[in-house]
Amino acid sequence: MSSRSPQPLDPATFRARLDRARAAAATAGNDALLIAPGSDLRYLLGVAGGSHERLTVLVLPAGEGVPALVVPKLEAPGYAHVPTADLGVEVVTWVDGEDPHRIAASRLGKPGRVAVSDNTEALHVLPFRDVFGAAEQTLAGPVIRELRMRKDAAEIDALRRAGAAIDRVHARMGEWLRPGRTEAEVGADIAAAIVAEGHALAEFVIVGSGANGASPHHMVSDRVIEPGDVVVIDIGGPLPEGYCSDSTRTYAVGEPRDADVAETYAVLQRAQRAAVEAVRPGVAAQRVDAAAREVIADAGFGEYFIHRTGHGIGLDVHEEPYIVDGNELVLEPGMAFSVEPGIYQANRWGARIEDIVVVTEDGVEALNNRPHELVVLES
Amino acid sequence: MSSRSPQPLDPATFRARLDRARAAAATAGNDALLIAPGSDLRYLLGVAGGSHERLTVLVLPAGEGVPALVVPKLEAPGYAHVPTADLGVEVVTWVDGEDPHRIAASRLGKPGRVAVSDNTEALHVLPFRDVFGAAEQTLAGPVIRELRMRKDAAEIDALRRAGAAIDRVHARMGEWLRPGRTEAEVGADIAAAIVAEGHALAEFVIVGSGANGASPHHMVSDRVIEPGDVVVIDIGGPLPEGYCSDSTRTYAVGEPRDADVAETYAVLQRAQRAAVEAVRPGVAAQRVDAAAREVIADAGFGEYFIHRTGHGIGLDVHEEPYIVDGNELVLEPGMAFSVEPGIYQANRWGARIEDIVVVTEDGVEALNNRPHELVVLES
Repeated sequence: MSSRSPQPLDPATFRARLDRARAAAATAGNDALLIAPGSDLRYLLGVAGGSHERLTVLVLPAGEGVPALVVPKLEAPGYAHVPTADLGVEVVTWVDGEDPHRIAASRLGKPGRVAVSDNTEALHVLPFRDVFGAAEQTLAGPVIRELRMRKDAAEIDALRRAGAAIDRVHARMGEWLRPGRTEAEVGADIAAAIVAEGHALAEFVIVGSGANGASPHHMVSDRVIEPGDVVVIDIGGPLPEGYCSDSTRTYAVGEPRDADVAETYAVLQRAQRAAVEAVRPGVAAQRVDAAAREVIADAGFGEYFIHRTGHGIGLDVHEEPYIVDGNELVLEPGMAFSVEPGIYQANRWGARIEDIVVVTEDGVEALNNRPHELVVLES
Repeated sequence: MSSRSPQPLDPATFRARLDRARAAAATAGNDALLIAPGSDLRYLLGVAGGSHERLTVLVLPAGEGVPALVVPKLEAPGYAHVPTADLGVEVVTWVDGEDPHRIAASRLGKPGRVAVSDNTEALHVLPFRDVFGAAEQTLAGPVIRELRMRKDAAEIDALRRAGAAIDRVHARMGEWLRPGRTEAEVGADIAAAIVAEGHALAEFVIVGSGANGASPHHMVSDRVIEPGDVVVIDIGGPLPEGYCSDSTRTYAVGEPRDADVAETYAVLQRAQRAAVEAVRPGVAAQRVDAAAREVIADAGFGEYFIHRTGHGIGLDVHEEPYIVDGNELVLEPGMAFSVEPGIYQANRWGARIEDIVVVTEDGVEALNNRPHELVVLES
């Protein structure tokens, strides 16, 4: 419930995506896709939608049949800007007292296999299971992610703008990150700047100071920043058009207290650079993970790098492709993801460097371009 | 990913809730509840959790067996403040490469019926279906909502503080709602004030000016406020401890342009008052809806009141009980919900008045206390 005025939509883009989704659904053996509000819907229709307990769903037949957006009558005005007629999508409204799952099912005859989008809530997954009776219920994620992870030029451009916006926030970190302030106070200033620099929302703000920096999923706390702290700042959020930023830099508030910071950080910086340099078309995703991991392991810090190297990014902050051991996916131009190795010294300090990169025709483009050195601020 | 420092938790409260949930699950014929991150988890453990694609779930056996919080090892530090030992909950971590759904299932032996929380994503609902094999899969919502809709004194107090906080925002509306500004500009100021007045988040901001006010789910747009506009302002969000505010007032920017506003608004005001006065223990939820609807219908505006009268509120902005025709639920002390009739003149203007109220031992307490008259601001 935080959407701003919708952007005008280019029907040709979305019509092509709908056609590709239907074809991919058929190839995967699904008779239909049921897409709930969220980023899959935004990818296909240009609108994320949003609903509370009432069902909204895009019913997309794989073969014959007219796609339908089933939506509560009360919420239909929120979709008025979607060029549904141009997209060949029929809008079907329902009112309290009707059975919306049955209305959705009635668009599909007797399907044998129906895929629901990965984020569909159980509140709707189980009623769909019941109204479709004998049909096999499966996930739409594998179909949709094949489309979403190959970005077109406009999507890459949106990610580029998101990257530049979050870089502008990092550039101002010295204004906020000072001794005597709590992580939460610093985080509130950063959140305001994320919005001021053009994001729709400050979706996440990690200010991990001192030992908190060694916990990769720490957000903020009431810990007071002290001189000598090393601080991990991992921030981002969506632009109004939906594409997300996500970038981490590590700062020191004055000279680092711990003697091992400079040498360890240098290893991390080499690892992050090695991983970025490994990115190009034809390389497996896991190879990029290995490039970072090898540098860190060779320096003896392997056990302190406790997460995968990266995640895809687009309309979601985390999406395919995942840059992780075991992922043999071959990188292609238009794939965008984070490269973010970290080294975490439990109970002492941590460091992480994260850029979003995109695979180009012959290599890689970094969408974050702040310096990679440890940024030593005044204390 | 916007959580602040967690509050200290009283283990006795949560231990009692876990016990009640297990007993209610057994009564409902479920062998276990699987609770995903979100407000159900926050209700039971004091922490909402949060995860992306990785599974976090509270496994709560209805009968014998130790409850388990299954969580990715990387995210376990985010639960370190939960007094799991005092609550009798075992923390079970998993790492990439393991099958977390199977790990969760292994806590339960051979259940016949397993309930998943309503907000569990299909990404987890379907793997749970598969690992439990022949077990019937059902929704945990009916079990948990019986608990959540009966608030204790501390919960009511949190809602009272949320109500006072959003009242303070409404009291300042004249600072922002002025001719020549867009709805989006006004909404941004309101959002900042919602946070400044103590909310964790400005979860929703509706600024429905002129004809936009006749669309109940409109958010904000680039429409410029004009003198004479009637403007519906529906705002709220969660406090840091999770309990939500939600209040609507209708404003006029100078004297209303349309001649029918005063008379129509007076009907709405009577309807809202009649509905609040209908609230007391022993009354059916639908009777409160009818009280508002009768006043509006008698005045000839029945077709312009196009939604239910209210919704429960607590850790979610929308939860049980719903104040809607057909809901025969008998109100009890500790139930909290909105009373928010509206009259919508399509393409012209709309009005809504919304207070959160709580059922007391012998009547009703309003948690929003700004005046109910149409607020005429300077133009």
